[in-house]
Amino acid sequence: MRWNKISDAVVRRLPLYLRVLDEITTEDPHKSLISSQELGDSSGVSPALVRKDLAWFGEFGKQGVGYEIGYLQNELRHILNLDRTVKVGLVGVGQLGHALARYQLSRMKDVHFRIMLAALFDSDVEKWGQDVDGVVIRPIAELPAVVQSEQLEMMIVTVPAHAAQEVVNLSVNAGIKAILNFAPTNLEVPADVRLANADVTLELQRLAYYLGV
Amino acid sequence: MRWNKISDAVVRRLPLYLRVLDEITTEDPHKSLISSQELGDSSGVSPALVRKDLAWFGEFGKQGVGYEIGYLQNELRHILNLDRTVKVGLVGVGQLGHALARYQLSRMKDVHFRIMLAALFDSDVEKWGQDVDGVVIRPIAELPAVVQSEQLEMMIVTVPAHAAQEVVNLSVNAGIKAILNFAPTNLEVPADVRLANADVTLELQRLAYYLGV
Repeated sequence: MRWNKISDAVVRRLPLYLRVLDEITTEDPHKSLISSQELGDSSGVSPALVRKDLAWFGEFGKQGVGYEIGYLQNELRHILNLDRTVKVGLVGVGQLGHALARYQLSRMKDVHFRIMLAALFDSDVEKWGQDVDGVVIRPIAELPAVVQSEQLEMMIVTVPAHAAQEVVNLSVNAGIKAILNFAPTNLEVPADVRLANADVTLELQRLAYYLGV
Repeated sequence: MRWNKISDAVVRRLPLYLRVLDEITTEDPHKSLISSQELGDSSGVSPALVRKDLAWFGEFGKQGVGYEIGYLQNELRHILNLDRTVKVGLVGVGQLGHALARYQLSRMKDVHFRIMLAALFDSDVEKWGQDVDGVVIRPIAELPAVVQSEQLEMMIVTVPAHAAQEVVNLSVNAGIKAILNFAPTNLEVPADVRLANADVTLELQRLAYYLGV
């Protein structure tokens, strides 16, 4: 693919741009063009960086005219694999997992949101068969079969730290290629699997750095 | 400060290193040295990048010997401003906020965790005076006074998208310098305030990029 080598920092900003464009088209469906200045202001990114980021993907913009919103939305969705619905599972329906599941399920009412929480897993036999807003909680042992049957592509991990690596291994062996980890521990994945740490603790510790600068 | 210009990508990895070192000293208090290979393997970072990252802060390591664990822990804590306890507030004690608050409060039992959740705020009068594991929920109107009296330095924002900018403005005006935002919207802050988006939606959309590569 032509965008194989795009840096993580650029990829990190693309969903921001897409969200701004989606908000704009919801508010004003007739607006068809946007400048890098406007897109940057709404994304919290400098206009120069907006232009540089989008230049990676080809020549979307026209000098002095701006970017065509509909075309840019489609291209960003395509780049992010969100021109289809991506199915995700969640393992560990404790308090945080339960709250995240409800939150994600409520977000799915947004037509722009192409990520579908399609399966929940927990180790607690008491929770099996219960549901969160219609999505049933299943035993972790069923994870490999459900990844296949539901065609899950990503997994959210909200189990305790000591259980996280085992859950990640199970997911990876089942074919999951992207994992969002909330467990406060460092995890190992093969090179072809993408792991993101959404660990709130790490985020807070990282932010603390900037208090002293 | 000498480390004024360190890139965000480097800063992002420092809490990972610190956590590995803290785990090692908990498991084996007598271990005094660690190689960049070992630190890298446990952090999911290449040994070369470990050495490069730590070189920003001076010469900690000795060729062929490794890094002195205690010294490195102290330096990392100092760099991250975690050689003192940093106090944080949380605004929006809905389901996600409540779960995050409980999670953070449970994390504080860890002696290595120098971030203290010291105040909770919500707009719902029904919640005022209630507490989450001992931390009382107060009106948002009291936020500026509490930031001063409790010496809060960071704020976690878990209010709905439409309310987030107002809460951020209130926090910034009260002197907060670092904000962790969970609301699914783009927020504006002055140049001297650090904003991190912990928006799960953005993380999932970003991860989806790597499914296609």
